[in-house]
Amino acid sequence: MTDRLRVAMLAPVAWRVPPLHYGPWERVVSILTEGLVARGVDVTLFATADSITRARLAAVAPRGYAEDSSLDAKVYECLHIAAAFEQAAKGAIDILHNHFDFLPLTFSRLVATPVVTTVHGFSSERIVPVYRAYNSTTHLVAISAADRRADLEYAATIHHGIPLDEFTFRPGSGSYLLFFGRIHPDKGAGEAIEVAQRTGRKLILAGIVQDPEYFRTAVEPFLDGQQIQYVGSVGPTQRDVLLGGAIALLHLIQFEEPFGLSVVEAMATGTPVIAFRRGSMPELIDDGVSGFLIDAGDTDGAVAAVDRISDLDRRAVRAHVERNFTAERMVDDYLRLYQRILGENVAVQLRDAPQHRVSPTAEVRR
Amino acid sequence: MTDRLRVAMLAPVAWRVPPLHYGPWERVVSILTEGLVARGVDVTLFATADSITRARLAAVAPRGYAEDSSLDAKVYECLHIAAAFEQAAKGAIDILHNHFDFLPLTFSRLVATPVVTTVHGFSSERIVPVYRAYNSTTHLVAISAADRRADLEYAATIHHGIPLDEFTFRPGSGSYLLFFGRIHPDKGAGEAIEVAQRTGRKLILAGIVQDPEYFRTAVEPFLDGQQIQYVGSVGPTQRDVLLGGAIALLHLIQFEEPFGLSVVEAMATGTPVIAFRRGSMPELIDDGVSGFLIDAGDTDGAVAAVDRISDLDRRAVRAHVERNFTAERMVDDYLRLYQRILGENVAVQLRDAPQHRVSPTAEVRR
Repeated sequence: MTDRLRVAMLAPVAWRVPPLHYGPWERVVSILTEGLVARGVDVTLFATADSITRARLAAVAPRGYAEDSSLDAKVYECLHIAAAFEQAAKGAIDILHNHFDFLPLTFSRLVATPVVTTVHGFSSERIVPVYRAYNSTTHLVAISAADRRADLEYAATIHHGIPLDEFTFRPGSGSYLLFFGRIHPDKGAGEAIEVAQRTGRKLILAGIVQDPEYFRTAVEPFLDGQQIQYVGSVGPTQRDVLLGGAIALLHLIQFEEPFGLSVVEAMATGTPVIAFRRGSMPELIDDGVSGFLIDAGDTDGAVAAVDRISDLDRRAVRAHVERNFTAERMVDDYLRLYQRILGENVAVQLRDAPQHRVSPTAEVRR
Repeated sequence: MTDRLRVAMLAPVAWRVPPLHYGPWERVVSILTEGLVARGVDVTLFATADSITRARLAAVAPRGYAEDSSLDAKVYECLHIAAAFEQAAKGAIDILHNHFDFLPLTFSRLVATPVVTTVHGFSSERIVPVYRAYNSTTHLVAISAADRRADLEYAATIHHGIPLDEFTFRPGSGSYLLFFGRIHPDKGAGEAIEVAQRTGRKLILAGIVQDPEYFRTAVEPFLDGQQIQYVGSVGPTQRDVLLGGAIALLHLIQFEEPFGLSVVEAMATGTPVIAFRRGSMPELIDDGVSGFLIDAGDTDGAVAAVDRISDLDRRAVRAHVERNFTAERMVDDYLRLYQRILGENVAVQLRDAPQHRVSPTAEVRR
């Protein structure tokens, strides 16, 4: 081991890192990678060739397979994953940090390098057998307490954090309700439209159409170019403006969401969130301070919450993110996990390490 | 290394080994595995748990994912492949023989064990980058000269062989034309129907329906229960009877077929084959002796060939298979390849090794 901690960051290759618009897993990888580089960690980012990073970029896939249909996802997945493990097999890295779902786990017993796996969500119960089979050879990280499974052992729960400088605090009370996420039944676009109609407020919907049939039947018929508008998927600059100008983010989810980046991002601009109390929402939203938690399915409750939204202090909404969901806090948590895995006797030299406190959201346990 | 050669045979897990009906890759794995065991090789067969073998069975998938839709193919593929490589990493095997397409190649640099890969066919040009990337760390075997790519280095070309005792020689001239294969445009079921109609012969079609739309439009309208009959997919016993009772097998393929097990199987019963001259067909059929090679697309030529089929001696048809396509010859060829890879200085103890000659079809080169 050299004097600098060497981390191989294994990103998904569906989208570029950082993603141009959609791509939450790639976005978190980017935030963590740049944060670690800023702390002096020697990071090799395994990602698409068009990714942008201050780390050393190692690429097999020229572009994301979700952005270029000529690329075979399965082919580029395995070439990409193997490249990171081959680097580990050479003894060239200290920690391999997997953000690429379950396939990399099956390579983990073939190298001596410790493998950290952030579980960005279980796409299906059917993939769980792989996590169970490799639980002993990888350090699993849950992204929320809600997403922890009782049948798996975790090394830590680490909430995502975001770079606050990308989100401008806006004290104004906003002029529209906002839906921000994939257009898919899970995310509750239809419920957001109902709440907008019942409160007589304007609604802007932003996000990729993941379920075209749902868009056609549950969203499109209500678009009038006035009260209910769909603006497509938006990039970082537009996102900051769109989030900050909202009265509230409507996050009326229909599933146990493991984390909600848009929830934290909205709050970072001062915009409170009205969410159904499912999945990680109670961990992300300080009820009555940074938004309102509504019983799942209670649309009446969501309508009433819109009417009470001005009770909330947008400064307190922002402060909630500053306390709990910064990139710095996430980087701290992962660094502590890496160091715990490598042992107390490993001297890891970091430069520019800022003073940072132990975060209340980082429930670290074995 | 012990005194016995230890081979890990990595089968696909789409179907059981041996397959109950369809499953050509699994079938070849079974033939090779049982043949090696008979020679005293210590074989661990990595396959579905319901597989049947005299080798040591190592299973992760309970059943084939093509036979049980509750199984996630990607999950069981990676668990299964990793199990074989983990065995290799322990130093417990001398050769890992991969029959599982490209994904295992990406594990090959993480173990010291030599990896032999039989390429059962390139499903798409898009998978070739994996073969190119790992060409230097696996010994590729082509299943025909026709299937060799100029941009890849091969360790050998080894034609498949079949167990002759499963195929009864039938001297009678047969009473129907036979189509035997997947119902898919590639395999020429429609062309077989045309030839049957134009020659006024009865036609039996057997095989799984791989392309339901093609079956509905190109096959089903012609089924009359008399002249043109479809009997579905057949198992080993029925297959022997069906192949042996045919006037000829019509193999009017519409693609560069890398090998044709049914072609060899038909010839083993004495039934000659009328095939379009594509892919491996010139390597499998002795034109004018064990069948007729017809210019691709020349249905008139195929019709004329049916009329001259009685010119062929069914005994000579069978003899062609006895000379070139027995399981013993295939096992010999693979054993020689394993020994070449392990080096002359490796003493491999084999029992019951029969006398066998060098096959003209085993063009072994580096």
